[in-house]
Amino acid sequence: MTKIVQCLVILITTISFSQTDAEVLKNIYKQSLKNGKSYNWLNHLSNQIGSRLSGSLGAERAVEYTKNELDKLGLNKVWLQPVMVPKWVRGAKEFAFIESESGTTTNVNICALGGSVATPALGLKASVVEVNSFDELEALGTENIKDKIVFYNRPMQADLIQTFDAYGGCVNQRYQGAVEAVKYGAVGVIVRSMNLRMDNLPHTGSMTYNDLPISQRIPSAAISTNDAQLLSTMLKLNKAVKFYFKQSCKQLKDVQSYNVIGEITGSQFPSEYILVGGHLDSWDLGDGSHDDGAGVVQSMDVLRLLKLSGITPKRSVRVVLFMNEENGLRGGKKYAEVAKQKSENHVFALESDAGGFTPRGFSFDCSDAVFNKVLSWQTLFKPYLIHYFEKGGSGADVGPLKTNANVLAGLRPDSQRYFDHHHASNDTFDAINKRELELGAATMTALVYLFDKYGVILN
Amino acid sequence: MTKIVQCLVILITTISFSQTDAEVLKNIYKQSLKNGKSYNWLNHLSNQIGSRLSGSLGAERAVEYTKNELDKLGLNKVWLQPVMVPKWVRGAKEFAFIESESGTTTNVNICALGGSVATPALGLKASVVEVNSFDELEALGTENIKDKIVFYNRPMQADLIQTFDAYGGCVNQRYQGAVEAVKYGAVGVIVRSMNLRMDNLPHTGSMTYNDLPISQRIPSAAISTNDAQLLSTMLKLNKAVKFYFKQSCKQLKDVQSYNVIGEITGSQFPSEYILVGGHLDSWDLGDGSHDDGAGVVQSMDVLRLLKLSGITPKRSVRVVLFMNEENGLRGGKKYAEVAKQKSENHVFALESDAGGFTPRGFSFDCSDAVFNKVLSWQTLFKPYLIHYFEKGGSGADVGPLKTNANVLAGLRPDSQRYFDHHHASNDTFDAINKRELELGAATMTALVYLFDKYGVILN
Repeated sequence: MTKIVQCLVILITTISFSQTDAEVLKNIYKQSLKNGKSYNWLNHLSNQIGSRLSGSLGAERAVEYTKNELDKLGLNKVWLQPVMVPKWVRGAKEFAFIESESGTTTNVNICALGGSVATPALGLKASVVEVNSFDELEALGTENIKDKIVFYNRPMQADLIQTFDAYGGCVNQRYQGAVEAVKYGAVGVIVRSMNLRMDNLPHTGSMTYNDLPISQRIPSAAISTNDAQLLSTMLKLNKAVKFYFKQSCKQLKDVQSYNVIGEITGSQFPSEYILVGGHLDSWDLGDGSHDDGAGVVQSMDVLRLLKLSGITPKRSVRVVLFMNEENGLRGGKKYAEVAKQKSENHVFALESDAGGFTPRGFSFDCSDAVFNKVLSWQTLFKPYLIHYFEKGGSGADVGPLKTNANVLAGLRPDSQRYFDHHHASNDTFDAINKRELELGAATMTALVYLFDKYGVILN
Repeated sequence: MTKIVQCLVILITTISFSQTDAEVLKNIYKQSLKNGKSYNWLNHLSNQIGSRLSGSLGAERAVEYTKNELDKLGLNKVWLQPVMVPKWVRGAKEFAFIESESGTTTNVNICALGGSVATPALGLKASVVEVNSFDELEALGTENIKDKIVFYNRPMQADLIQTFDAYGGCVNQRYQGAVEAVKYGAVGVIVRSMNLRMDNLPHTGSMTYNDLPISQRIPSAAISTNDAQLLSTMLKLNKAVKFYFKQSCKQLKDVQSYNVIGEITGSQFPSEYILVGGHLDSWDLGDGSHDDGAGVVQSMDVLRLLKLSGITPKRSVRVVLFMNEENGLRGGKKYAEVAKQKSENHVFALESDAGGFTPRGFSFDCSDAVFNKVLSWQTLFKPYLIHYFEKGGSGADVGPLKTNANVLAGLRPDSQRYFDHHHASNDTFDAINKRELELGAATMTALVYLFDKYGVILN
């Protein structure tokens, strides 16, 4: 062939390739925005069921509801995968105040951190030491910390554009704060809420005691950003300020729960699995609409939208609604364990667990070579304002599925509002926008379509 | 020079160029996110002043407030530019119901369209003809329309990704609906609200009578999307349904108002002007936080952020807070008229009038050659997740400044939630996210910095 003919052939091939996929994507987005079910499902999950902490009645009802809804979709298989989960209960609403040297008290908004022990039944009152880091804590040492409450007050960094980076820079205070404070004889921990906004809402979340004996565990709570500011200001004026809090949370025995799974079996390569998922459990303060009701209903709709768009996947496409992401990751671990036992080859797994806001793109955990292939799809997403294709993490639940050969990915929605709601009582359905949620479901479906069509093996 | 040396020189030049600008942009974003004033200004504008319809007390107070705030910024000049504006007042809250054939009435939510005449004092009741287009109206003709109320019910198209496209596809019903309906003897007009959501809030907005004599003008109102759905359903069941509405709005004489202007005079090319702006007036139902309080405070902060970031503009940078964008565009026209009289060379004008949501990029109204130059800056914005650089419209207020040589642009925030609030009673401060607003201000400042540094003339 001459060069010109060669070019022409390449050109024509490229155009027909692009047009076909472009048309498929257009139809997927249209179906989601006009006939999507994600918003209605989330309405039920949030407003009829509500919060879904592992081991709670809400979690149980969510398993039943989503299983029933998947049953209606005409998939090849729908089943429950048993998994034992921890059960932590908050008990009565927490109560806290700041007490000035003269004895005046000011009530403040706190909530127990997930996994924390209770205070003594009559509460705990002690002097407060404010620190911004574990280094500061170490420098203060036992002599300054013993018998006091440690108050971690390092704020999320406002000038980081992606709010998850700001979260990552702070969350060790919440997760490891108690373990570190115990080393120096602290009797309690108060952590500034992981929230970029100044408001009155405390944000819960998981914490660890590592292998500390139960007798040495100290109660830990989050305080709202406004109240953290107040406490810090009062401490600057007078170090004799005391803090009182009372919480009655406790850890019960593990209970039976389930991952909820649905599958469209592949027409050509049924033993190659593509997974989409989110986590069914949530914290208990709000109704978990963004974290992660959104990811659950979007993942469910991916399989539905594939069918609605007339796509017959070559590979098996599974939706997995994981249990217990928030305080144990038991569901994610169990799923990967069973997949390994059965030698199921998960070539691609996509998680939506960053809120139901306008999707901006994906983060990919894969080799450079595969990433370059994935990048070639980026232009297909341009009409939908999806631009973010970067290497990076995926999602906690799908993480255990990682191999050298496969691809994990996370949907990346706009993150600016996420930590306004994350793990707080305002993570509720009214903070969800229907179109934003549907755009996310369509964006996930489009990527699943492309991975199914082109695979991840490089020729 | 050898090729290698040439390449090296180009490479080094490119790197040093990029790093400098990259550092400047980083600082601009940091300043806005850590020390921005846009959110506090908007809090005052929205919560202390409130709605700012042209000719209202709110508009007057907003002129005074923003002038005073600009006075504090240490600019080279701050002044008011007089402009006469129309004054339309809503009067008492509107009232409407649907009446079934048996006489049962169901109250519905409506609001008069801006510029509409009142109904008779006792209200207007008539049969209803539902149409989805002016073509349908014409096909029905006088025999089916005379003495009836025309109900325009074409919804915004859900599968358009950019909601402004969906708005553009519907808004002729609101703007020209009365003029078209009058041709066939209609006595009133009800328009489905320009809202992609199903809810109970009517959305106002401007409408025209063209040059219809006052005696022939018919009252026009918007109805909420839920109630539009209800009315349509009832009409399908029984065409004998009647609609009653009462509104007491009126057009008063023009009144004196002002554009508010501030300027940093250019250090090298003071007679070349770069303009940033938004419009100070708003509709009267909410407090105009997104439309266009956001654009106002972001534009004000551009000049402040330039100073905070240590940037001394070579060209004169002006902030212009336009009056009367919503129902007359008198401010935009006046500004351009005066600029023309004074032969002021506006090389670049940027408007923010699409809400205070997460910025996605810009739409540019300019030549292809200049656009290619602008595109070379796109990578500088990547760390801030600003990706949308497209040719297109700019903003209504800056539109009259267009010449063959200059560049107009519009900030393009995420549009998914915009029409949930646009021109309705829920366009309020609580729908604003501080970070999103500040990211917009930074994004505008960054573009102004680049236009100031590199100009728009192609070498």
